[in-house]
Amino acid sequence: MKVKIVGGPSSTKLAELISLQGNLPIVRVGYKRFPDGEFYFRFEEDIEGQDLLIVQSLYPPSDAHILELLMMIHGAKDLKAGSIGLFIPYLAYSRQDQRYLSGETISSAMLADLIQATGASYLYTVDIHDKAVLHRYRIPAFNLTASKELALYFERKGLRDPIIIAPDDEEDARERARVAAETIKGEYDCLTKRRDRQTGEIRTLEKRLRVSGRDAIIIDDIISTGGTAANAVRILKKQGARRVFVGATHALLIGNALELLKEAGADEVVGTDSVPGDVAKVTTANLILKALEEHRWL
Amino acid sequence: MKVKIVGGPSSTKLAELISLQGNLPIVRVGYKRFPDGEFYFRFEEDIEGQDLLIVQSLYPPSDAHILELLMMIHGAKDLKAGSIGLFIPYLAYSRQDQRYLSGETISSAMLADLIQATGASYLYTVDIHDKAVLHRYRIPAFNLTASKELALYFERKGLRDPIIIAPDDEEDARERARVAAETIKGEYDCLTKRRDRQTGEIRTLEKRLRVSGRDAIIIDDIISTGGTAANAVRILKKQGARRVFVGATHALLIGNALELLKEAGADEVVGTDSVPGDVAKVTTANLILKALEEHRWL
Repeated sequence: MKVKIVGGPSSTKLAELISLQGNLPIVRVGYKRFPDGEFYFRFEEDIEGQDLLIVQSLYPPSDAHILELLMMIHGAKDLKAGSIGLFIPYLAYSRQDQRYLSGETISSAMLADLIQATGASYLYTVDIHDKAVLHRYRIPAFNLTASKELALYFERKGLRDPIIIAPDDEEDARERARVAAETIKGEYDCLTKRRDRQTGEIRTLEKRLRVSGRDAIIIDDIISTGGTAANAVRILKKQGARRVFVGATHALLIGNALELLKEAGADEVVGTDSVPGDVAKVTTANLILKALEEHRWL
Repeated sequence: MKVKIVGGPSSTKLAELISLQGNLPIVRVGYKRFPDGEFYFRFEEDIEGQDLLIVQSLYPPSDAHILELLMMIHGAKDLKAGSIGLFIPYLAYSRQDQRYLSGETISSAMLADLIQATGASYLYTVDIHDKAVLHRYRIPAFNLTASKELALYFERKGLRDPIIIAPDDEEDARERARVAAETIKGEYDCLTKRRDRQTGEIRTLEKRLRVSGRDAIIIDDIISTGGTAANAVRILKKQGARRVFVGATHALLIGNALELLKEAGADEVVGTDSVPGDVAKVTTANLILKALEEHRWL
């Protein structure tokens, strides 16, 4: 039996694309915000016994998008849907999976509990910042990667002797860079970051890289305020990179992040439809469709 | 054993007042929002085995305040607090306890499930719009009323032949008016409202009331955009009321609600500290302290 797609308010276009590309029916829904900001959601067709895939990314304002997601799951459960799958391209609150200081609340664990308590059956996300967060889930929870799709986007730019750069040398960043490099049959290398445990501040070290005269592509999972990525761009430019591209799965681009990156010398900044907006030039629709097929949900 | 007070971000002043008036220790906490809007919360002292009362009102932005509340409860549970009591003066998403149209999600039921799933022990709220919502809770859940406190505030204005007016004739509104009238040893009466089931629009009927030459006090639970309350003020003024006061437990006052009420002829609009702001001239601290004492949590 085919899953039916439910497009949440944060990801309506992505849901439509998944429906179109996968030839999957989309469930008619209605929603609004009341004047006091309270959310209202209605399934406008019978979903009893139906297998659903709710598509809702949790980019800022994350708390509002989370409440919307929980209301859709809770409603689907209450209305006796069959399985309730989730595609959450950007899983908010996934930066911290442990207590750095005593007494801290672990928001990733809370979100996992909320998603499970409301009745979700399984979960897919994309390029989660800390994979350990997925261990908080007792339901099947999978991480997909958009590295290949980002690399393919830049390949169309006519790259000269390209090199993929991971913004840090941790395992996940290195793996994303490896996949991107493999896609464009190029090399990859990693910058190095140091985090101050008390302030949480991140500093990128001025490591020597073989980028002189070459097109460099930074492949990152999240760009938030853009400070760290802008530093990476600056380092690559200083070392003689010809062009510097920035590809991020989740281009949150808080405040003037995009200007910061351009000022640092970035030739183009590209994200996925995990976060709708001007830079969202790569879709995650094929990722989830492939995963659903592999896992036999289709 | 005494409960310790935890002041949530939406109700820090109220929490301090409860601590002060009830001679109850307040737990040191730290919190912030990251640049991307994600919430961070930390208990800055050991709460293991401690009985807590978390004070957090859910006025707009409700979704953000709900996430903050859930994170505090979840953290307290994780850190092995004893009992986790909640004082939520304004319980958001309490307008609807049933499905008006097929396929609607019932947000009040969802919020109850979230609060319980994260580990709350019991709950107090004030003048909840629909008492039926409390039946969604399996943990002890109590509704308090600020009617008496609002009436006492207006009594200090030197009232002339006062009459309390309920904005509609439903049981809860009538009961709140009765309590307020008893407090100031005056009369009370009720206006009548009709709700359109499809649009949800509310219209107040021009019922004849004995308000001519008298000070009238409208006692309401929630004032949101102020349209309904402004209509009530207008009706009372038209019928010759001397002064018209408006007392609402939850003066959300969305947009230009306060101007609307003033333009309609309201002499003063007063709310409680359920919603901090200029009109919050009545506290709910004594309500919760009395209830805690009665229920032997103190």
